[in-house]
Amino acid sequence: MGKQQKNAISPTRAEDYPEWYQQVIKASDMAERSPVRGCMVIKPWGYTLWENIVAHMDGMFKATGVKNAYFPLFIPVSFLEKEAEHVEGFAKECAVVTHHRLEQGDGGKLIPGGPLTEPLVVRPTSETIIGDSFSKWVSSYRDLPLLINQWANVVRWEMRTRIFLRTSEFLWQEGHTAHATNAEAIERTGMMLEVYARMVEDYLAMPVIKGRKTAAERFPGAVDTLCIEAMMQDRKALQAGTSHFLGQNFAKASNIRFQTENETEEFAWTTSWGTSTRMIGGMIMTHADDDGVIMPPRVAPAHVVLLPIFRTPEDRRQVMDYVQKLAAALREITYCHRPVVVEIDDRDIGGARGWDWIKKGIPLRVEIGPRDMAQDSVFVGRRDHAHRDKKAMPREAFVAEVTAILDDIQNNLFQRALLVREENTRQVDNRKDFYAWFTPKNMEKPEIHGGFALSHWCGDRACEATIKEDLNVTIRCIPLDASAESGQCICCGKPSERRVVFAKAY
Amino acid sequence: MGKQQKNAISPTRAEDYPEWYQQVIKASDMAERSPVRGCMVIKPWGYTLWENIVAHMDGMFKATGVKNAYFPLFIPVSFLEKEAEHVEGFAKECAVVTHHRLEQGDGGKLIPGGPLTEPLVVRPTSETIIGDSFSKWVSSYRDLPLLINQWANVVRWEMRTRIFLRTSEFLWQEGHTAHATNAEAIERTGMMLEVYARMVEDYLAMPVIKGRKTAAERFPGAVDTLCIEAMMQDRKALQAGTSHFLGQNFAKASNIRFQTENETEEFAWTTSWGTSTRMIGGMIMTHADDDGVIMPPRVAPAHVVLLPIFRTPEDRRQVMDYVQKLAAALREITYCHRPVVVEIDDRDIGGARGWDWIKKGIPLRVEIGPRDMAQDSVFVGRRDHAHRDKKAMPREAFVAEVTAILDDIQNNLFQRALLVREENTRQVDNRKDFYAWFTPKNMEKPEIHGGFALSHWCGDRACEATIKEDLNVTIRCIPLDASAESGQCICCGKPSERRVVFAKAY
Repeated sequence: MGKQQKNAISPTRAEDYPEWYQQVIKASDMAERSPVRGCMVIKPWGYTLWENIVAHMDGMFKATGVKNAYFPLFIPVSFLEKEAEHVEGFAKECAVVTHHRLEQGDGGKLIPGGPLTEPLVVRPTSETIIGDSFSKWVSSYRDLPLLINQWANVVRWEMRTRIFLRTSEFLWQEGHTAHATNAEAIERTGMMLEVYARMVEDYLAMPVIKGRKTAAERFPGAVDTLCIEAMMQDRKALQAGTSHFLGQNFAKASNIRFQTENETEEFAWTTSWGTSTRMIGGMIMTHADDDGVIMPPRVAPAHVVLLPIFRTPEDRRQVMDYVQKLAAALREITYCHRPVVVEIDDRDIGGARGWDWIKKGIPLRVEIGPRDMAQDSVFVGRRDHAHRDKKAMPREAFVAEVTAILDDIQNNLFQRALLVREENTRQVDNRKDFYAWFTPKNMEKPEIHGGFALSHWCGDRACEATIKEDLNVTIRCIPLDASAESGQCICCGKPSERRVVFAKAY
Repeated sequence: MGKQQKNAISPTRAEDYPEWYQQVIKASDMAERSPVRGCMVIKPWGYTLWENIVAHMDGMFKATGVKNAYFPLFIPVSFLEKEAEHVEGFAKECAVVTHHRLEQGDGGKLIPGGPLTEPLVVRPTSETIIGDSFSKWVSSYRDLPLLINQWANVVRWEMRTRIFLRTSEFLWQEGHTAHATNAEAIERTGMMLEVYARMVEDYLAMPVIKGRKTAAERFPGAVDTLCIEAMMQDRKALQAGTSHFLGQNFAKASNIRFQTENETEEFAWTTSWGTSTRMIGGMIMTHADDDGVIMPPRVAPAHVVLLPIFRTPEDRRQVMDYVQKLAAALREITYCHRPVVVEIDDRDIGGARGWDWIKKGIPLRVEIGPRDMAQDSVFVGRRDHAHRDKKAMPREAFVAEVTAILDDIQNNLFQRALLVREENTRQVDNRKDFYAWFTPKNMEKPEIHGGFALSHWCGDRACEATIKEDLNVTIRCIPLDASAESGQCICCGKPSERRVVFAKAY
């Protein structure tokens, strides 16, 4: 492949970004479409990545006092209806269970039998079913705060799906907390956003902007929605996690009441917060290149692949022995709370072997042949930059430096992504420039536009709607660290006190 | 409580075993019924236990080369139908999704809308949907073996449910493998049964009998089903895990074909194997007593609770300081691959505090008051035996010995359970004794019967059916280690070559 073809993935990002995304996933063997509409199969290389993300994030949650629990997959329709905005937000995309068996129909075909008295919805999110439990668990201020998380599958019946980014079923975590005061619930909402930002930046190497959603973009039923937003390589935004302050809305809907220290009765203040397998889609679109996926070392399914090179059976024996010892030495090393994960690929498939691992995005590829062995050296390729530039290193130095190299790759990926965001983010201060910024330069590539615009907004929902209607651009967030600054709304020209982030989004 | 009431749980095991089971779970705060029919809520104390089981078992799977993946929750009805026995076995208890949204019906009530062209079943098990993926992943003998596991929720619409033992939704793992030869698939079936036996015996401290199911008790569609069977304290059997050799049945149903080394085409040989949250029910019924749950230390959600005792604020400050240091010292210690987990309970609720932890089954309770502190000693209660016999120990000795004490508890629990099984297992050699063995001694307590009977069986399905009909007793398994022995069938008197395990079962 190396010589005939310039890149492993066709089309390239520049040629057709959406199709490139599908091909990158296919080539990496991370996941695939299933025969069930909108659902994906997560293959071992993708699932191991998810396991690593889960392990790190779960530890972060527990460090803040959160405990895991598990609630039913099914939600009675009457539960969803308890919060009016909430049901409005999810009713249109629910999988509905109506029967509890299959029976023989005409011609022996199996058809649904045993109708349920009340239909059940497969959870799209669990505020209402968890709220029901909370209402039983909480009776006094002494029972608060209640800090619960659930790792689960959820279903939202999407019309247009894309692997990892938008699928009918996806894996996620949903945190749900209840507090005795408004202030404490607000503090928890911010705390969990901070956990998400750390996870996504420090582990997935994706720089994010922390902010607040406008009323139009809030979670259905929430008082306030905080979010982290990342820029993909096509300059569109991807929301990588949200944390909601629910006020007393859901406590009232689910009757979560408690006796205060003063013996009055009060509804609890609740929060919910979630991240999902969507993060993986974001990670791919942040780092992958025209040769395939690039895995940030801290979450990579494996860190190093050893590629023995041999011609004769005698070579093979000796090289494999050397490779096995090197693997053992590497596995003794701890990187980011787990042993260095080493794959050995001794398939006899020529150049395709190295390319397979490039497409999978493994951080380090190490070739070892009889000549390297004779010199006690290894031939190392890194996935973070020009990966055809492989470098010989003494074996001992490689083992000694492997964690430093992995950290260097991790850091490079983050810095490179940050640069992409900075290069494609601009303060835009008049309407004409704003419309130009979001107008594709080339009509054949509608995905190529300016990127993020930091522009003033008066706070009026009508202006937000106009821009969405005209450009398919939304306010991704009002950055939490935005300093007060006077200006004019990019849409109507009325006074504004701060800039917000406008972008096209996934 | 201590003096007024003899036991923490009412009724006791002897008074009403099934109700005792429900009360033990309630008192332990491990799980509860949900408002969704047949579904449970697993609370943090129960879920942490599950997390520990998962972590150990997942490591064991991976050590045999298995990788995790994730497949869709939904299975099209046409997939289930591909294997005739399989669909027959599951059609009667399926949750069926028939619509993909909710819409306003008469009077504003939400009703199912958007009918699906083909109904989807919420997976009761995933052979058919995973088989579809396997058929795409396998084309050559080089792609085999394929060793996949999934941690997931499944739904079987049960009419009579009991927390952990039989619920409509439960959590489980399902392993699915495909092989190039019959022999290799059979070997894998046995290997995974061995993993299950090790997990259940070494971690859950439940002795098991490894065996083979009779044709009547096999997994629908399997060629051979291996199982592990444990005895509960009411002498009934509980199946704690099964491993199925599926022959080429499911490969033919799902079209999993491969090219052999000789370039012929062949269907793969497959296996599947599963364990679930049901193990937790088994663990409770094996070890719990009339004061509540007893957690085997190796999987316990926490190992030690520290109970500071104080009267004055000054006492409190000093004792809490001492307790915090002790907790830190204990947390430095590794027990069974994780740090010793320490809870500190400083609630001011009198004697109820210690009882709470007894009911939760924490292995060690440690009381520390000003007097203990002055002597640098701690007052230790163990959950494996007479837990009112607490014992003073030098703090230093306790820290030094804590892992040995935990191991001793683990071992005691196993030995005690083994004794229960041995005391209630008997070789029964004539029909009259057999019927007497399974006839309750006391009609008011139908649960009290002999236990396991090791008896001869001719191999005839009719005899098996007669005994089931007459006594509600089934052949739990044909033990794998049964030595050939001539005898007469317990039912018909015809010649038999080996004894099998007969029992009432959950």
